[in-house]
Amino acid sequence: MRPSSLPRVMIEPLVRATLLEDLGRAGDITTDAIVPADLTVKTVFAARQPGVVAGLDLARLAFALIDPAIRLESEKDDGDVIAKGDAIARIEGPARGILTAERTALNFLGHLSGIASATASVVAAIAGYKAQVVCTRKTTPGLRSVEKYAVRAGGGSNHRFGLDDAVLIKDNHVAIAGGISEALRRARARTGHLVRIEIEVDTLAQLAEALDQKADAVLLDNMGPDMLAEAVRLVAGRAITEASGGIALANAAAVAAAGVDLMSLGWLTHSAAVLDIGLDFIE
Amino acid sequence: MRPSSLPRVMIEPLVRATLLEDLGRAGDITTDAIVPADLTVKTVFAARQPGVVAGLDLARLAFALIDPAIRLESEKDDGDVIAKGDAIARIEGPARGILTAERTALNFLGHLSGIASATASVVAAIAGYKAQVVCTRKTTPGLRSVEKYAVRAGGGSNHRFGLDDAVLIKDNHVAIAGGISEALRRARARTGHLVRIEIEVDTLAQLAEALDQKADAVLLDNMGPDMLAEAVRLVAGRAITEASGGIALANAAAVAAAGVDLMSLGWLTHSAAVLDIGLDFIE
Amino acid sequence: MRPSSLPRVMIEPLVRATLLEDLGRAGDITTDAIVPADLTVKTVFAARQPGVVAGLDLARLAFALIDPAIRLESEKDDGDVIAKGDAIARIEGPARGILTAERTALNFLGHLSGIASATASVVAAIAGYKAQVVCTRKTTPGLRSVEKYAVRAGGGSNHRFGLDDAVLIKDNHVAIAGGISEALRRARARTGHLVRIEIEVDTLAQLAEALDQKADAVLLDNMGPDMLAEAVRLVAGRAITEASGGIALANAAAVAAAGVDLMSLGWLTHSAAVLDIGLDFIE
Amino acid sequence: MRPSSLPRVMIEPLVRATLLEDLGRAGDITTDAIVPADLTVKTVFAARQPGVVAGLDLARLAFALIDPAIRLESEKDDGDVIAKGDAIARIEGPARGILTAERTALNFLGHLSGIASATASVVAAIAGYKAQVVCTRKTTPGLRSVEKYAVRAGGGSNHRFGLDDAVLIKDNHVAIAGGISEALRRARARTGHLVRIEIEVDTLAQLAEALDQKADAVLLDNMGPDMLAEAVRLVAGRAITEASGGIALANAAAVAAAGVDLMSLGWLTHSAAVLDIGLDFIE
Amino acid sequence: MRPSSLPRVMIEPLVRATLLEDLGRAGDITTDAIVPADLTVKTVFAARQPGVVAGLDLARLAFALIDPAIRLESEKDDGDVIAKGDAIARIEGPARGILTAERTALNFLGHLSGIASATASVVAAIAGYKAQVVCTRKTTPGLRSVEKYAVRAGGGSNHRFGLDDAVLIKDNHVAIAGGISEALRRARARTGHLVRIEIEVDTLAQLAEALDQKADAVLLDNMGPDMLAEAVRLVAGRAITEASGGIALANAAAVAAAGVDLMSLGWLTHSAAVLDIGLDFIE
Amino acid sequence: MRPSSLPRVMIEPLVRATLLEDLGRAGDITTDAIVPADLTVKTVFAARQPGVVAGLDLARLAFALIDPAIRLESEKDDGDVIAKGDAIARIEGPARGILTAERTALNFLGHLSGIASATASVVAAIAGYKAQVVCTRKTTPGLRSVEKYAVRAGGGSNHRFGLDDAVLIKDNHVAIAGGISEALRRARARTGHLVRIEIEVDTLAQLAEALDQKADAVLLDNMGPDMLAEAVRLVAGRAITEASGGIALANAAAVAAAGVDLMSLGWLTHSAAVLDIGLDFIE
Repeated sequence: MRPSSLPRVMIEPLVRATLLEDLGRAGDITTDAIVPADLTVKTVFAARQPGVVAGLDLARLAFALIDPAIRLESEKDDGDVIAKGDAIARIEGPARGILTAERTALNFLGHLSGIASATASVVAAIAGYKAQVVCTRKTTPGLRSVEKYAVRAGGGSNHRFGLDDAVLIKDNHVAIAGGISEALRRARARTGHLVRIEIEVDTLAQLAEALDQKADAVLLDNMGPDMLAEAVRLVAGRAITEASGGIALANAAAVAAAGVDLMSLGWLTHSAAVLDIGLDFIE
Repeated sequence: MRPSSLPRVMIEPLVRATLLEDLGRAGDITTDAIVPADLTVKTVFAARQPGVVAGLDLARLAFALIDPAIRLESEKDDGDVIAKGDAIARIEGPARGILTAERTALNFLGHLSGIASATASVVAAIAGYKAQVVCTRKTTPGLRSVEKYAVRAGGGSNHRFGLDDAVLIKDNHVAIAGGISEALRRARARTGHLVRIEIEVDTLAQLAEALDQKADAVLLDNMGPDMLAEAVRLVAGRAITEASGGIALANAAAVAAAGVDLMSLGWLTHSAAVLDIGLDFIE
Repeated sequence: MRPSSLPRVMIEPLVRATLLEDLGRAGDITTDAIVPADLTVKTVFAARQPGVVAGLDLARLAFALIDPAIRLESEKDDGDVIAKGDAIARIEGPARGILTAERTALNFLGHLSGIASATASVVAAIAGYKAQVVCTRKTTPGLRSVEKYAVRAGGGSNHRFGLDDAVLIKDNHVAIAGGISEALRRARARTGHLVRIEIEVDTLAQLAEALDQKADAVLLDNMGPDMLAEAVRLVAGRAITEASGGIALANAAAVAAAGVDLMSLGWLTHSAAVLDIGLDFIE
Repeated sequence: MRPSSLPRVMIEPLVRATLLEDLGRAGDITTDAIVPADLTVKTVFAARQPGVVAGLDLARLAFALIDPAIRLESEKDDGDVIAKGDAIARIEGPARGILTAERTALNFLGHLSGIASATASVVAAIAGYKAQVVCTRKTTPGLRSVEKYAVRAGGGSNHRFGLDDAVLIKDNHVAIAGGISEALRRARARTGHLVRIEIEVDTLAQLAEALDQKADAVLLDNMGPDMLAEAVRLVAGRAITEASGGIALANAAAVAAAGVDLMSLGWLTHSAAVLDIGLDFIE
Repeated sequence: MRPSSLPRVMIEPLVRATLLEDLGRAGDITTDAIVPADLTVKTVFAARQPGVVAGLDLARLAFALIDPAIRLESEKDDGDVIAKGDAIARIEGPARGILTAERTALNFLGHLSGIASATASVVAAIAGYKAQVVCTRKTTPGLRSVEKYAVRAGGGSNHRFGLDDAVLIKDNHVAIAGGISEALRRARARTGHLVRIEIEVDTLAQLAEALDQKADAVLLDNMGPDMLAEAVRLVAGRAITEASGGIALANAAAVAAAGVDLMSLGWLTHSAAVLDIGLDFIE
Repeated sequence: MRPSSLPRVMIEPLVRATLLEDLGRAGDITTDAIVPADLTVKTVFAARQPGVVAGLDLARLAFALIDPAIRLESEKDDGDVIAKGDAIARIEGPARGILTAERTALNFLGHLSGIASATASVVAAIAGYKAQVVCTRKTTPGLRSVEKYAVRAGGGSNHRFGLDDAVLIKDNHVAIAGGISEALRRARARTGHLVRIEIEVDTLAQLAEALDQKADAVLLDNMGPDMLAEAVRLVAGRAITEASGGIALANAAAVAAAGVDLMSLGWLTHSAAVLDIGLDFIE
């Protein structure tokens, strides 16, 4: 699925900072020593394994910030499925700049494509069910905005982007408030009409209490498929249902079959392996 | 292995930025609505799986920047081996601040401990051999400094920190230069006495050429154990030997047995899964 | 109404930048020339007119960043109603630092208290009605987070904080989509279950179409009280209703009487006059 | 009056930061969902009320930073008087970017045009008198540079830009020094030949003392027109005279008639309402 | 001469950035490897040559930002004259932090003390004359604020801090305007009453023209002592006189003897050698 | 010697910040008042003294960031030797922008060319000897990266860029460790195979001990030519030899004649005078 691209103004600070952490205080001393300044080359980003692409704009910007004479022409778009060996993009221009920016571009592309690919694999596993695959706030420090973008590229959706854009009452909040009802009452009293309120429940009794208090959404935490199905029946459309906790590729379909609206998976953003992509010179 | 901690001035910008990406424009609206301002609590970071800790200073700073009244007392140090269920640190103070900073602190601690644990597992797998485990420049954007720190916490060493602190001549550089010898000659001519020069070789013929040109180190790329052993014999102590490419936990010992000085693994930093750590409230 | 304070990590960059734009390249040359370095004084922030306070944390931080020896003890809290002549806070410590930070502190306090006071006046005008007073994205550049905080201090609520935290379909979006229904269909297809969708409607026919498409909220733009009342009847609880456009203090009660859930006023943040507060030295 | 434009390097950080506070972590989700990526439109900034324009460069930059393909062609320049309904600028290009940047551009344009318009109204009210209209350091946090620019666009002048570019001895400084003369002596002893020294006086006796000490300028604080006229006579050209305190549109001419050189008005920058400007799509 | 210290908020960004450029991505690997974490030491900054101190606050902050447990107690203040061998400050605390911050602290202290010392030598050379020694905008990139501070510490004064805080009409401006009179007319028409206008003149004829146009100050460029004296006579107190161009320690007295008010020397800030200061461990 | 240019992404933050410290809050008020907006001019950077150029990219960027319509065409490249009167670059375009950016561009060009020229003079003085001229960490705060670049432009080499890219054991480290051998043992135990270890020695006995411990490089501190020659004999190629301390232009050849590999000179970066370059308008 092809997500709307993030405006350059949103990604430029991140790409600049990442280039600088690689360039350090002297720049690319290897390339400067060996590669003639006027040599131009044609190269290609080639997939070393199948998956879903994400992050082409960040890769393109990495090259452009090192040398605006470098052109990255994409063969694939973010969200596209790729096979092993596929050309993802062609990068042409001054050899020095291409070699200098290569690692930064690939670090973005590999990391975000890894997340998109993991997301897509779960989406595929639950095809036919209504559930949406969503990510969490368990993201890599500094990368939340682009990691959530990668989840969208993989066909998933985004849950909260931060602490400020929805109320999510967790078990510790419930404990402090003294119960589901009181927690919901406090939340309702302090938040405006447009803010959705979701609450974590661990038992069906808690779920019933949350429904009585008209929670907008319920996070069904660490429930097995049977209990999830029972919970969905209990909810009966009165709230959005979200399954959370311990959802892997292997059991995703079973969870989806329980009829939940959302399935949230922290590992999509915190533990997905990179997608292996390499830069090949074209003869 | 307990690494020297990074000075606060080095990690503070990263921790501040990460808190801000979670706080957004309104802060923690859930906690503010539900948790009394004067409530203090005692909590603990507990390991949900065995591994090696890294990132306690970043976690401590996350809490301190939200509320200086929060105290994090560590039960373990970075580099310590932990078992499932171990208490890693105790965090006490205002409940609001602890809940608000929890996710940021855990995102750092889980990510860096995941890298330290992966490193430690490889280090353990090659115990008895002389080889050092090193990471690469395949790091997560924005996190190079702290990810390399986590590798040290896991008992590994660091290769180049960036493009500027050593010469590493890769296959594309060799191709552009027209050969191993010319690439080394160019590098030698342009870099000072104190800069080490390493070159990637794919064959024993290339290796011989590199040794003739007195490379300081040779990166033996994608060679099997037998070929590695042959390469080490050929080098005969005249250069530092580094094995690279396709080294996993399963084949690490075989690579080390070949006698190389260094084994570099990109996945330590780009694909290690987080170490699962949770925050528990203490009754 | 006393809002939860924003964590220091959220406001510190703004306060630092504002101090620096006043200090320039040489600092406070008047105070440095005239005031002895060891003189300490007692001062008070006094209200020159009645209103509602907001921004004390920013004022306190302005003094602390200039000289940590300065203490600001608040007599009032953000959200408190104050009368002309009331002491808002007492600031004691080195005279130099107090004089140097005075203007920055007052610029924050006056601006945010002005917004809180304007909000409170509208909230008072509609007392007894269910409508919430909300602000918009028409905020002063760079100050969105703290201006929205000031609205909460005045008893109001916050609408969207930015382009990213809810869908608000405006007239131009509708025109481009070719109609209310198509705009809502596109929005629904591209956004997750947890995102609320609000749409601007200018006529009752548009409103009916929006309700058919199950919009979560409807923005009733520039409608008079009678038309608003008719719209509220038509909605009949099926969506959140928001009145917008041309709402001033004088007509606020009439709008609220129409039964809407929300009343949004851009001028609370873009055109409220500062609340006049002064710094007095205490003999 | 058309002021010299501020170089882009001065305004770019502010415009970038303001776009980012609106884009948040996901960008413009409404526009991305509804508006086709390849749709281009023609739009116009139209004045909803008469006034004076300021801020076109910031508006232009807001669009350009979102999408360089957007062109803003100005029909008016900063400093131009506009009537209700006038076209101020035409903005053409990709519809998505125009809608995404619209609010940021208008927030700048409305805020700065509001200041320019307020300034122009005072300037017009004192036409024929020699007095210059000047603003103060009572500016909105973070916007001093551009707000002072807007005052110039409205035909006013700028007083101090900060604490560092002139000496202005206020009543509290005088009290600490123990009197007008001692305050001026200290200031003279510590500042170079090129720095002007201005001092606030509340009585004619203080004024006489300030003149004896050869103050470069005197700030006549909160004096009525008669007392101001008396003060101007007393000064007799020996110092620049500035009236300050309580100057509104209604009494501006009376103050100017007293013969002062400068009239400073804090409300031009801290309390001017925005100028109402809207974005219209052109059929 | 002891200048007022710059508030920490002004110098902290510079000190942080300078520490980071030295710490790089791994910190002080030498000290971390060799020095025990719990070792504390007593050290002293000792003068290796005579001069005038400046920059102690920046040095103190460098240590504090690395480790708040380090205490720097100054034996001398900024502006104090020191002899070879004098103790300038005592630094005590954790050895690691002291060694890590040493170079950054010394780079600030040496650079700024070098400027203060150069300034003081010129000030001493013209003792008895009324002329003030002033610096120019020929400062080291990024250090203008602190270099101008160092000039004050050495007993000098500051000319313009930037392009924005006074009008200085140079020869190229005059050429473009078509002459001294027209340049002054344009400047007067565009700047407010409080802005001083200075103009560069190369001949006595130009000087006469500038005086006719009531320039506030005249920059007498590259004139010898006799011509300067003639120029001062011609001015006769009607404007501030500034000698500029080619003023070195050797000819400073001759220039001052001509009776000018100001002598500006670019080399104080752009070419002064560092003052040699070292860190000694105390047994 | 022409060094590889630093990528724009590395120098842009520095050039932007330096422009802003000159522009302040109002920009170039002199030029704006006097120079017509549409005037274009042709100018040239002319050498006022012989030397070696460095910093052209920074100067070019200063102009481009003020006005992209300005073109700087270089007549010389960084590293080129220039004679008095030589044209270094031609700058053409809008007069306003050229005058506004002139000082910033010249401050960079003069400072860096001064360093390059000083370096080149030492390099010339030791022509025929094998020694390389290297700089130290005694750089101007904030300018390390570009100052080290200027040393390369002058034909020198760079020693450590920071605390993190090599081990350099100084006398205080040795004292803390309790001796040369123990210091080297600790360093070896904590650093990876690829990090070079250099140690400062003050006597031949220390040198012998360092060689026994297989130091990679020895810093021969403050030794006279005879002692240096003796040290070089003792080393006999087993380590890189570096002379340090008290090396000036006058004694450089004597030091080089002793046969050392490296000569490090702090003053190249901390005390070199600017190279005098001026901007001339072309009729």
